[in-house]
Amino acid sequence: MKILVLGGDGFCGWPCSLRLSARGHDVVIVDNLSRRSIDEELGCQSLTPIVSLPERLAAWRETSSRSIHFTHLDIAQDYDGLLRLIDAQAPDAIVHFAEQRSAPYSMKSSSHKRYTIDNNVRATHNLLAATVESGRDIHIVHLGTMGVYGYHTPGLQLPEGYVRAQLVDSRGTAVESEILFPTNPGSIYHLTKAQDQLLFAYYAKNDGLRITDLHQGIVWGTQTDETAYDDRLINRFDYDGDYGTVLNRFLVQAALGLPLSVHGTGGQTRAFIHLRDSVRCIELALDHAPMRGDRVAIFNQMTETHRVRDLAAIVARLTGATIAYQANPRNEAESNELEVENASMVGFGLEPTTLSGALLDEVTSIAGRYAHRCDASKVPCLSRWTRESLADPDLNLLATKHGMAA
Amino acid sequence: MKILVLGGDGFCGWPCSLRLSARGHDVVIVDNLSRRSIDEELGCQSLTPIVSLPERLAAWRETSSRSIHFTHLDIAQDYDGLLRLIDAQAPDAIVHFAEQRSAPYSMKSSSHKRYTIDNNVRATHNLLAATVESGRDIHIVHLGTMGVYGYHTPGLQLPEGYVRAQLVDSRGTAVESEILFPTNPGSIYHLTKAQDQLLFAYYAKNDGLRITDLHQGIVWGTQTDETAYDDRLINRFDYDGDYGTVLNRFLVQAALGLPLSVHGTGGQTRAFIHLRDSVRCIELALDHAPMRGDRVAIFNQMTETHRVRDLAAIVARLTGATIAYQANPRNEAESNELEVENASMVGFGLEPTTLSGALLDEVTSIAGRYAHRCDASKVPCLSRWTRESLADPDLNLLATKHGMAA
Repeated sequence: MKILVLGGDGFCGWPCSLRLSARGHDVVIVDNLSRRSIDEELGCQSLTPIVSLPERLAAWRETSSRSIHFTHLDIAQDYDGLLRLIDAQAPDAIVHFAEQRSAPYSMKSSSHKRYTIDNNVRATHNLLAATVESGRDIHIVHLGTMGVYGYHTPGLQLPEGYVRAQLVDSRGTAVESEILFPTNPGSIYHLTKAQDQLLFAYYAKNDGLRITDLHQGIVWGTQTDETAYDDRLINRFDYDGDYGTVLNRFLVQAALGLPLSVHGTGGQTRAFIHLRDSVRCIELALDHAPMRGDRVAIFNQMTETHRVRDLAAIVARLTGATIAYQANPRNEAESNELEVENASMVGFGLEPTTLSGALLDEVTSIAGRYAHRCDASKVPCLSRWTRESLADPDLNLLATKHGMAA
Repeated sequence: MKILVLGGDGFCGWPCSLRLSARGHDVVIVDNLSRRSIDEELGCQSLTPIVSLPERLAAWRETSSRSIHFTHLDIAQDYDGLLRLIDAQAPDAIVHFAEQRSAPYSMKSSSHKRYTIDNNVRATHNLLAATVESGRDIHIVHLGTMGVYGYHTPGLQLPEGYVRAQLVDSRGTAVESEILFPTNPGSIYHLTKAQDQLLFAYYAKNDGLRITDLHQGIVWGTQTDETAYDDRLINRFDYDGDYGTVLNRFLVQAALGLPLSVHGTGGQTRAFIHLRDSVRCIELALDHAPMRGDRVAIFNQMTETHRVRDLAAIVARLTGATIAYQANPRNEAESNELEVENASMVGFGLEPTTLSGALLDEVTSIAGRYAHRCDASKVPCLSRWTRESLADPDLNLLATKHGMAA
């Protein structure tokens, strides 16, 4: 297949591009390199020493004898360029990673909120509008997030996109329907993915676009088989307070001999997936495209759930680190349950990489090996969810006032 | 109260501004005058001879001895200007009409789709972000549309924003919840209002903003008590295929002695409200603001429902016009039922102006009086919902494939 990978220089996009290329697909990376600019803005860098995209691509040609092409394009700003690219490349599929993907970054300031909304909504809508305008039948695979739900109704397993519902009006009339599971995003970033979901539903319905939306958990792990071929292919590892996931920050804290910082009680339960499985899920999604006229195919892309404090305990046990509890900068409940349905990907053949099986490798071959590159001052989360959130604990309760158990 | 009216030069914004000023509020109109630029783009003009906004404001000062200030600002493009304005004016409330509001216009081309998404989502998000950044406790009243639902589950009365639901997961576990009524927008324009709804829910939850979202039906009628004071205060009347509502197009067709063009079978049922009642609802919404920490207050702003073909029959009876059935350019079902709850506004004191009571006045004092200004070539709807919609009738069925009875 000819596949465009939008955001193919990023943390998930890069290993996905290599994997699809290794499988024999003709891959074109489309990226504005914004993730690298944001590193400059934040004064951070990947813990792992990533090289420039041209060097990455040269290394891939050298090691695999396969070529990946690169188009430097901002799909949110240059619609005409995107349309010309689609016309010229005539792709069978487009994998869309090209969005700002950090919740804390999206909450840093008014301008970060606006950048995230404008960039993500425009990027997704430009892609959909250009696909329609091209007249081509292209399968679009989008990386969404389980975070669009933000909470789940306690006791209910999070479904794959759609849920059976009985709706009851004020007269007591009840009607059965299958609906998109209600969203309740917890940050501006997550909000954009909920807005994307409406865009997808509309374009599938009105224009017959074939769309798969992958609701991904938190991705952990750094390397895949392909990124491990050569040091110049190494994937990025973010540990800063904005882009570093909770597990990555624990790993670098442990490698530096610092206590693991747990926000609040650590009772928040999150869904996780290893990077290798995430890349495999993209392959599986491409192999199981919806038909023209179908509704959006929504799959949960996660393999296990953990409470943050349990995760800290696992890392502490592996490394001997201690745990320090801190105030939570997010506007969320202290703890939540989380059960997630993931039957589709498992049914397609996904064989999960578990935390218990692969975390030690991450501790030694990534965090241990590159700890000397770490700037410990970048680890804390400084982004605040509200003006008052750290000053006024009552305001943290707003999130739960709407009948939502987060 | 000090009130900013965003989009205060438009069809609903102008009579709303006058009404609030007449009631003694201190009103500032904020507008980029885009509706007038779009008239230029489309080569159309209001059937009624509207004067420039400065002339309108001068006439209002003269006839009422009250002043309305005007700031020329594009809130979607100039965030800093919006924030400075909010800081300088310190409003108690902001009424937000500043969005592109035509469904057919939003579907004319890829660039019209992108303009509508970019403009509407940015305008709303800039307003919310600026309100938070200002630190002020401002009541935001937004003009939404009942069209976010696009259909309703047959037999169910459309609630005011929220619906009781029993959600059932794949294991059969059932949980009761109150959720936003599921949206199913029928055009890019309606889609932006569904995206707005997610923005409002988020900012109410995370930042405690006080927000009222009015889900309005199709507004008919041209004048209010205030716009009728003086010819220079007259409100706009759109009859073109993009901005003219179905009723307005019937009225001008009848005035010109043309047959009334009904799309499809005319079985589509729509909700309606007279402009005078719409303006009254804004007043009532301002008088019934939610408290800080409340969820978004959502009210249905409509007073009656009619099938399009019944509406045509009423106009035909009043005027002697004939009816002509044509292909439907929209991607929608042939007919639908529509029952709508509107208890809130009636409970607040709204006394509906009915079509049967006030339509004749519209026929004579507006359509009849200004028919000589009409360009009959502008009446047909030329905007197509899909590339194939008029060529391939099967594609019109896509909308109903998703378990939705439109």
